[in-house]
Amino acid sequence: MSTKIVEEKIPLYSMPSGHKLDLTAYHIQGDKLGPHVHIQASVHGSELQGSLVLFKLLERLKNEEICGSFTLIPLANPLATNNKQSTFTQGRYSQVTGNNWNRLYHDVTPELDFDDCLSEQGDLRQKFKQHLKVILQANVKKRKDYGIPHDILCSSTLQIMAAKADIVLDLHTGPCATEYLYAPLHLKKHAEDLALPFHILIPSEFAGAMDEACFTPWFHFEKHCSEQSREYGAPFEAYTLELGSEEKLCSEQAEKQVQVITSYLSARSILSCEQQSKPVLQQDLSAFKSYHCPAGGLIEYLKKPGEFVKKGDGLYLLHLAHKPCLTIQANQDAYIINHTPSASLIQGSCVYQVLELA
Amino acid sequence: MSTKIVEEKIPLYSMPSGHKLDLTAYHIQGDKLGPHVHIQASVHGSELQGSLVLFKLLERLKNEEICGSFTLIPLANPLATNNKQSTFTQGRYSQVTGNNWNRLYHDVTPELDFDDCLSEQGDLRQKFKQHLKVILQANVKKRKDYGIPHDILCSSTLQIMAAKADIVLDLHTGPCATEYLYAPLHLKKHAEDLALPFHILIPSEFAGAMDEACFTPWFHFEKHCSEQSREYGAPFEAYTLELGSEEKLCSEQAEKQVQVITSYLSARSILSCEQQSKPVLQQDLSAFKSYHCPAGGLIEYLKKPGEFVKKGDGLYLLHLAHKPCLTIQANQDAYIINHTPSASLIQGSCVYQVLELA
Amino acid sequence: MSTKIVEEKIPLYSMPSGHKLDLTAYHIQGDKLGPHVHIQASVHGSELQGSLVLFKLLERLKNEEICGSFTLIPLANPLATNNKQSTFTQGRYSQVTGNNWNRLYHDVTPELDFDDCLSEQGDLRQKFKQHLKVILQANVKKRKDYGIPHDILCSSTLQIMAAKADIVLDLHTGPCATEYLYAPLHLKKHAEDLALPFHILIPSEFAGAMDEACFTPWFHFEKHCSEQSREYGAPFEAYTLELGSEEKLCSEQAEKQVQVITSYLSARSILSCEQQSKPVLQQDLSAFKSYHCPAGGLIEYLKKPGEFVKKGDGLYLLHLAHKPCLTIQANQDAYIINHTPSASLIQGSCVYQVLELA
Amino acid sequence: MSTKIVEEKIPLYSMPSGHKLDLTAYHIQGDKLGPHVHIQASVHGSELQGSLVLFKLLERLKNEEICGSFTLIPLANPLATNNKQSTFTQGRYSQVTGNNWNRLYHDVTPELDFDDCLSEQGDLRQKFKQHLKVILQANVKKRKDYGIPHDILCSSTLQIMAAKADIVLDLHTGPCATEYLYAPLHLKKHAEDLALPFHILIPSEFAGAMDEACFTPWFHFEKHCSEQSREYGAPFEAYTLELGSEEKLCSEQAEKQVQVITSYLSARSILSCEQQSKPVLQQDLSAFKSYHCPAGGLIEYLKKPGEFVKKGDGLYLLHLAHKPCLTIQANQDAYIINHTPSASLIQGSCVYQVLELA
Repeated sequence: MSTKIVEEKIPLYSMPSGHKLDLTAYHIQGDKLGPHVHIQASVHGSELQGSLVLFKLLERLKNEEICGSFTLIPLANPLATNNKQSTFTQGRYSQVTGNNWNRLYHDVTPELDFDDCLSEQGDLRQKFKQHLKVILQANVKKRKDYGIPHDILCSSTLQIMAAKADIVLDLHTGPCATEYLYAPLHLKKHAEDLALPFHILIPSEFAGAMDEACFTPWFHFEKHCSEQSREYGAPFEAYTLELGSEEKLCSEQAEKQVQVITSYLSARSILSCEQQSKPVLQQDLSAFKSYHCPAGGLIEYLKKPGEFVKKGDGLYLLHLAHKPCLTIQANQDAYIINHTPSASLIQGSCVYQVLELA
Repeated sequence: MSTKIVEEKIPLYSMPSGHKLDLTAYHIQGDKLGPHVHIQASVHGSELQGSLVLFKLLERLKNEEICGSFTLIPLANPLATNNKQSTFTQGRYSQVTGNNWNRLYHDVTPELDFDDCLSEQGDLRQKFKQHLKVILQANVKKRKDYGIPHDILCSSTLQIMAAKADIVLDLHTGPCATEYLYAPLHLKKHAEDLALPFHILIPSEFAGAMDEACFTPWFHFEKHCSEQSREYGAPFEAYTLELGSEEKLCSEQAEKQVQVITSYLSARSILSCEQQSKPVLQQDLSAFKSYHCPAGGLIEYLKKPGEFVKKGDGLYLLHLAHKPCLTIQANQDAYIINHTPSASLIQGSCVYQVLELA
Repeated sequence: MSTKIVEEKIPLYSMPSGHKLDLTAYHIQGDKLGPHVHIQASVHGSELQGSLVLFKLLERLKNEEICGSFTLIPLANPLATNNKQSTFTQGRYSQVTGNNWNRLYHDVTPELDFDDCLSEQGDLRQKFKQHLKVILQANVKKRKDYGIPHDILCSSTLQIMAAKADIVLDLHTGPCATEYLYAPLHLKKHAEDLALPFHILIPSEFAGAMDEACFTPWFHFEKHCSEQSREYGAPFEAYTLELGSEEKLCSEQAEKQVQVITSYLSARSILSCEQQSKPVLQQDLSAFKSYHCPAGGLIEYLKKPGEFVKKGDGLYLLHLAHKPCLTIQANQDAYIINHTPSASLIQGSCVYQVLELA
Repeated sequence: MSTKIVEEKIPLYSMPSGHKLDLTAYHIQGDKLGPHVHIQASVHGSELQGSLVLFKLLERLKNEEICGSFTLIPLANPLATNNKQSTFTQGRYSQVTGNNWNRLYHDVTPELDFDDCLSEQGDLRQKFKQHLKVILQANVKKRKDYGIPHDILCSSTLQIMAAKADIVLDLHTGPCATEYLYAPLHLKKHAEDLALPFHILIPSEFAGAMDEACFTPWFHFEKHCSEQSREYGAPFEAYTLELGSEEKLCSEQAEKQVQVITSYLSARSILSCEQQSKPVLQQDLSAFKSYHCPAGGLIEYLKKPGEFVKKGDGLYLLHLAHKPCLTIQANQDAYIINHTPSASLIQGSCVYQVLELA
């Protein structure tokens, strides 16, 4: 058995030299009907592990029986991927506007008329998806007279593609980071099927990111349907997966991360792979704390991503020119989620992000 | 007569090498009582004309009779000012977080208890200023355990200093730009005393900028006082002045801009200089339009900042590699406010910003 | 009459996203035999006026009678052209290695065996060109096992193409600059046919630039032929033309610059256009002086490119925070060649470059 | 016993905001006479491990008996140290000129008159040091009229300080690197006392770096003295030590590196610490090979710095978008010296540097 993969080239933008950066999406239609899954990686240009995961997932899906369909976009933002400065990739912000590439999506919720949607004939989910797409496309179209900003062009192209999805996974990484997940509070229970060790539970509200832009309208629509006692089915799901460190690729880790995803998709009956069940630590966003250095200086990290620290443990040393070195301690018991990949920082730079225990 | 100028050094942040970047503020107390005026420049590091204006205003004030007091901060963001990359200054965004330096201020309105303020003894304005300062300082203090982000350290330091002001002027420039002003709708009439040729009227709401952070709590407090029929006096005023082009200094233009400011302050009886009266074009923010290029290529600007264009006039040429050159036309009659200072752009980059006529 | 233009796409490099940046060269074969002319532009990515000149020259040549042939490369370095950072182009140095794109060429002189070349049958120029090409290609080939550095890939591709030329023009611009030319001392007289107002005479030696890499082997070969009393003909010519300011395009100026080039080519009987004769000021490289600022601060330029300054005239103002402003004066009578396009500089940054009178 | 440490602040440059970046040097005079040792770190701003080593060495020296004297400069280039872009430090090249900070030193050899030096009264070494200093200072002074370029200001300040040294150690790191050393061929045997595992033997010639600028004039002077049968004593020594990876600090590793240095200084009788003797692999510079990627793509490193690879072993995987992944193999048996700290590269970027076995 070999599943057919259709490669689509989507025009994105042209560069000053005239060269064009298109987007490549891989479309897979399973033999049986089922949910549509949209997975994209590397919207932040230096967060590449997800691209490797999608290269491998693509190979894997060729030989799987699929109930549903897929759109996979391994390199979702070629401009950011290509923005090399010295040996590093400046891929978090548009090099043109300074905007964070993952804060540019659009919340269509205020533009939706739920009752209008409910009054239409046909499958509720399909109709709602159609409404999402129409609104998103209209938003782009009405900007055409004055030209579409380059960063909006990228985010709207991705968001329009995701409008037909029932599940959206946005693959990112932290700086020097462990594996973790952002899940909205209303999907707390569902998220447990995605076996990354740490889950940060975010409000079911829009704040600019892809996952939020995708789940927010569905969240409100589902509430509305429920209030109207309309049959609905499984909820729409969207998550941001953080698959380790930026500027790092590891095939061995990628194989395991593919399994995390196939296990999750099997729990949704889209695939029929082995299902893993691993304990995950779920904590509210308020427990996700950032330590900023109290002075500029040279930084020596004492704890690794994934490690547990007790309150009072040394987190990092701050070597100050001409002064004794400072030890900065943990304010609370916590797991280390990530730290900055640099050994020298300006005062007030983020050093560590941790997930505190209540 | 020579007014005394007190120079204050405010610690800001330290760099990896241990060197400290402090902030210099100049305080001037007039002989007579009157409003407190806070003027800062170069929060965006490459927008330097305002610094020159403040250097000159400082000299000028030495010999003026002043009813009120001043805080002048000519270089309000030394980190951004010093962020030279090649010959240019990357001063719009924090080099660490990517945040726009003028979108980081804090709206204290939701934390204010207006009735509490009204119930206190003493001068209404002074009490309100005291409340603003206390809330802003508490917000900084509560972050101290985890360290204050470097960009918030800068914006909160400036905002706390401005809490005692009755008038706040934030001096910026555009890219290649004419002179213009951002004024909130509720100060439309008052803004006319600031004789820059174009006024863009923005909502009286908070969206992150210094002027908005300053006027929003006052705007709501003034409404509340008015509803309670409490005596209030002249409204609080805050504006963003755009004094030409970034990366340019012109003493001759600066002299004229000092006059724009002294004329405005004289209309408020803080100074007693000659008052200019020049026609200004005031248009709603919705008339401020941005043209983004429909393709990447080489850009030849056909219109200068300040020029008038008719609908259909050529705005710029887009020289495309291997293709005939495109002429992009104006969609509506408009004044050119600014254009980008580069001759090659990625598709979707902002080329021109214009102020359209209704 | 319409001359045929052959467009060639030359593979250059691929980007992390897999997108390829090829080079486009336009080849033109005249009806009559004559010298081969190689003209390239925008090796430094922000120096774009030469690209516009080549777009226009290409149109012009369609209708000219040509004795000889052309290779025109309007965008000779698409990686540098596309390296946009904020609104600027960081196009002078490779973003990967930090190398100046115009200091990477290769001097083949030490690898040439002039006597070997003289002993061969056939046309002396053609044989020498063949030797140049063979050596350059061998140098690339021998690096293949370990991979060719990306910046060498660009410079060697251009240099190999130029090996068949009799005339090489490399089109650049200064920062904020007037029009000027770099010519080797041994071509002082010949350079006069290129009517740019200022000529800087450089040693007939290799120092890394395209013009030097091209003329150095020919210069030594010509001397050798002369010593051997071998018939040689017109000397090989290579120049760097500086066509104004970076990040600027002006069609009107480009038309005039096309005339400078066609006039020169007509003086060489390759075209038969009108020949201009304008006075040029030729000065030795030692008269080309750079002023570096004695302190960091804000810079106000007092003189424009092309202007004449007398010894003692104010060149620029250095506005120092918290200190009186400094006026920096000219050390000698000079013409202003260029200044830096920024209004704030770190101590020791280049402010002005001037051409002094003896 | 506690040795006195004198802290000296040397003015370096001022920034646009007026803030000054001075250099801090620590001077130590031992109780007994002996050679002068100059050690500097972090001339490349992201190569910080050497700074940590010097902080620790400084503490150590307080309690050591010293025959000779020291100048230690832990942060030798504060401008580069402070040049943070996003989370990384762009510290290899001047952000203003693009010059590599360690290719800017000056070779005074051609300006030296050895016989003049030999004819003078007094100690040969002291006289020669005096000549070096006088020439270096004169070179700076003659540039004063036009202002000293900011990068030359840094390199010349350091080089003048090193003119009085008998031993110069310049502490650097590689990108992701093992520990290694650059030593000139004529000091091959002497270098063995510096127990870093890999030694790259470079020509005894000037090519721009600090070590070369220091040893080149001494190398020629020593040869000259030897030819004249003049008594000379121990040779001048200068090395570049690569102490691991950039953007990393490790106190544990730093303690060991301090021992490498104290052991070496004890072999020279300047200290009397324990002397280590470890095997080092010394290879000629020609065995130090750089692998550049044959295409752009995502890079997965298969070998770690310090590891040994056999010819034919896989070095790295090149994951190409839309194409099967490539395995790039070692051309020869070699030790991995360093690799680039990024997982995505433009075609022709350096991936690995290795030291091949003959």
